[in-house]
Amino acid sequence: MASTLHSPLAVSLGDPAGIGPEVIAKCWDNRNIFGLPPFVAIGDPRSVAAVWDGPIEVVDDPRQADSAFDYGLPLIQLNVPQADLPGHPSVAGAHTSLDSLEIAVGLARSGSASAVITGPVSKEQLYSIGFQHPGQTEFVAERCGVSPGNVVMMLAGPTLRTVPVTTHLPLSAVTSHLSSALIESRGRAALRGLQRNFGIAEPRLAVSGLNPHAGEGGELGREELELIEPAIAALAAEGWRVSGPHPADTMFHARARANYDAALCMYHDQALIPIKALHFEDAVNVTLGLPIIRTAPDHGTAFDIAGQDRADPRPMAAAIRMAAENAIQRADAT
Amino acid sequence: MASTLHSPLAVSLGDPAGIGPEVIAKCWDNRNIFGLPPFVAIGDPRSVAAVWDGPIEVVDDPRQADSAFDYGLPLIQLNVPQADLPGHPSVAGAHTSLDSLEIAVGLARSGSASAVITGPVSKEQLYSIGFQHPGQTEFVAERCGVSPGNVVMMLAGPTLRTVPVTTHLPLSAVTSHLSSALIESRGRAALRGLQRNFGIAEPRLAVSGLNPHAGEGGELGREELELIEPAIAALAAEGWRVSGPHPADTMFHARARANYDAALCMYHDQALIPIKALHFEDAVNVTLGLPIIRTAPDHGTAFDIAGQDRADPRPMAAAIRMAAENAIQRADAT
Repeated sequence: MASTLHSPLAVSLGDPAGIGPEVIAKCWDNRNIFGLPPFVAIGDPRSVAAVWDGPIEVVDDPRQADSAFDYGLPLIQLNVPQADLPGHPSVAGAHTSLDSLEIAVGLARSGSASAVITGPVSKEQLYSIGFQHPGQTEFVAERCGVSPGNVVMMLAGPTLRTVPVTTHLPLSAVTSHLSSALIESRGRAALRGLQRNFGIAEPRLAVSGLNPHAGEGGELGREELELIEPAIAALAAEGWRVSGPHPADTMFHARARANYDAALCMYHDQALIPIKALHFEDAVNVTLGLPIIRTAPDHGTAFDIAGQDRADPRPMAAAIRMAAENAIQRADAT
Repeated sequence: MASTLHSPLAVSLGDPAGIGPEVIAKCWDNRNIFGLPPFVAIGDPRSVAAVWDGPIEVVDDPRQADSAFDYGLPLIQLNVPQADLPGHPSVAGAHTSLDSLEIAVGLARSGSASAVITGPVSKEQLYSIGFQHPGQTEFVAERCGVSPGNVVMMLAGPTLRTVPVTTHLPLSAVTSHLSSALIESRGRAALRGLQRNFGIAEPRLAVSGLNPHAGEGGELGREELELIEPAIAALAAEGWRVSGPHPADTMFHARARANYDAALCMYHDQALIPIKALHFEDAVNVTLGLPIIRTAPDHGTAFDIAGQDRADPRPMAAAIRMAAENAIQRADAT
């Protein structure tokens, strides 16, 4: 796989007090088992050394990562006044995590890195230093000159990909935030992402209903008739292969999953319950609609277990692997 | 297993034009592979003969089923003026399915049968003949002298059991139907059912949140703080082992499932998405809170594939097996 990437992958360490440094170091340790191509970490080497005894190869330029990768974890070092302790987040650590993200995105924008994989950050800490974005995704979008409304979060595992139309809303607010236009634009972004990132020429999108049994023809809610079906019809009229609205409870078993490339879901848990039930260890958060490739493991900083050698590196490995696959896919297509 | 049941299981065929007769006959065919104890079907033998070439042993009394079971599918015959064709539901068939259900419940009530397994019916057809209940569950409850409000639906698979607090409501109506009292009573019924039907002396109940990330401390909705936490506290004060509210998306992976015996979920799809994603072929609908044991496969009549030898008997087999296990459990406990 490595040979077909024109440059290494850039991995931001995330919050230095979280599990990011540990899982990234473990990914390097297990690079052969996990099948990972060369990547370069960006952050404070002390946050890695605090939780890992392996070799770190400090580099100045991602181009050095390829050759350094055989000898140690390649790392672009940030100037950080003070090292954080694992499990003890600080304002300084928030700055470090933001700088790391900024540099990783810059490397991908310039072509020095093939893709960005972002380690977990603490939003609470970032907000305390004046971070204005809801999360890393929106920050990356802005740095890429893309409106956050045009990027879409996909959760992708080995046998299922889901895209939520709405995300961090109280359940009672979902209905009022849904519209045909929103369903349509998220669906279109998902379909384009399946083409551009996953190389699926004629992607199939399965759209869920909002209500039990997809509303039973209006008996259990009218959003299917009034919002979802028109959005499906609009996408189909553009030539996309779109089906639904499907009852959400019968969309996610193995036989059903074989009928589509991604499921467009109406709300957060409708998209995340099935992906995490089926693929907890290897579901990847992929941001679609960006000029660069960006993936992330779908877990947080886990401050409570940081520094205890208990963090599972498989989600990070899956995110790195998928970033590489998507980058190769895009390079082949252009 | 058979030797410990004091009487056979009663299986209503459901709508004669649906897949009930076919899957029940296939269960008899595969009784050894599926590990099924003696059961007696109730309905019109012509609806079985129309879709299956195997031997039918018409019996008058469930006590004959044990010895007949080795030679053919034991069946208590209903007087039905006209045979239905598979895939062509009729008013006569609706009467047959209701009579079959009524007799099966009566046999279990009297102790002539150890449990009832109900084949799939068409609610639309039943409504057309004046059926007043939302579904078979409420009918069974009434025949048992139990208020429908005190029975609870559990979906049970090999590695997960879920209980929805609310069921067939539009998603936008869920919040207004939730209350601490309802969560508490459903939780208590689930816990008692785990004791009585499943023989778990000190059952552990995991309660889901309603909102993404279980509301994030009130940031994404206040139902966790105002409705769910008080219900959990009330159950815990009674000595039950109850945890939560848990973020729904991280409750259903294998490691999380090991921490509880059942998950109490706030709405239909929250309970049904994970059970069907994980256990589509062998999830069983169990009614808790009844004086009798009642299970059902979690599928409908599937009129569209009836009579084509395409119906999968595994959900019905799982329902029969679980009914037997629950019946043995209850007999042992009394």
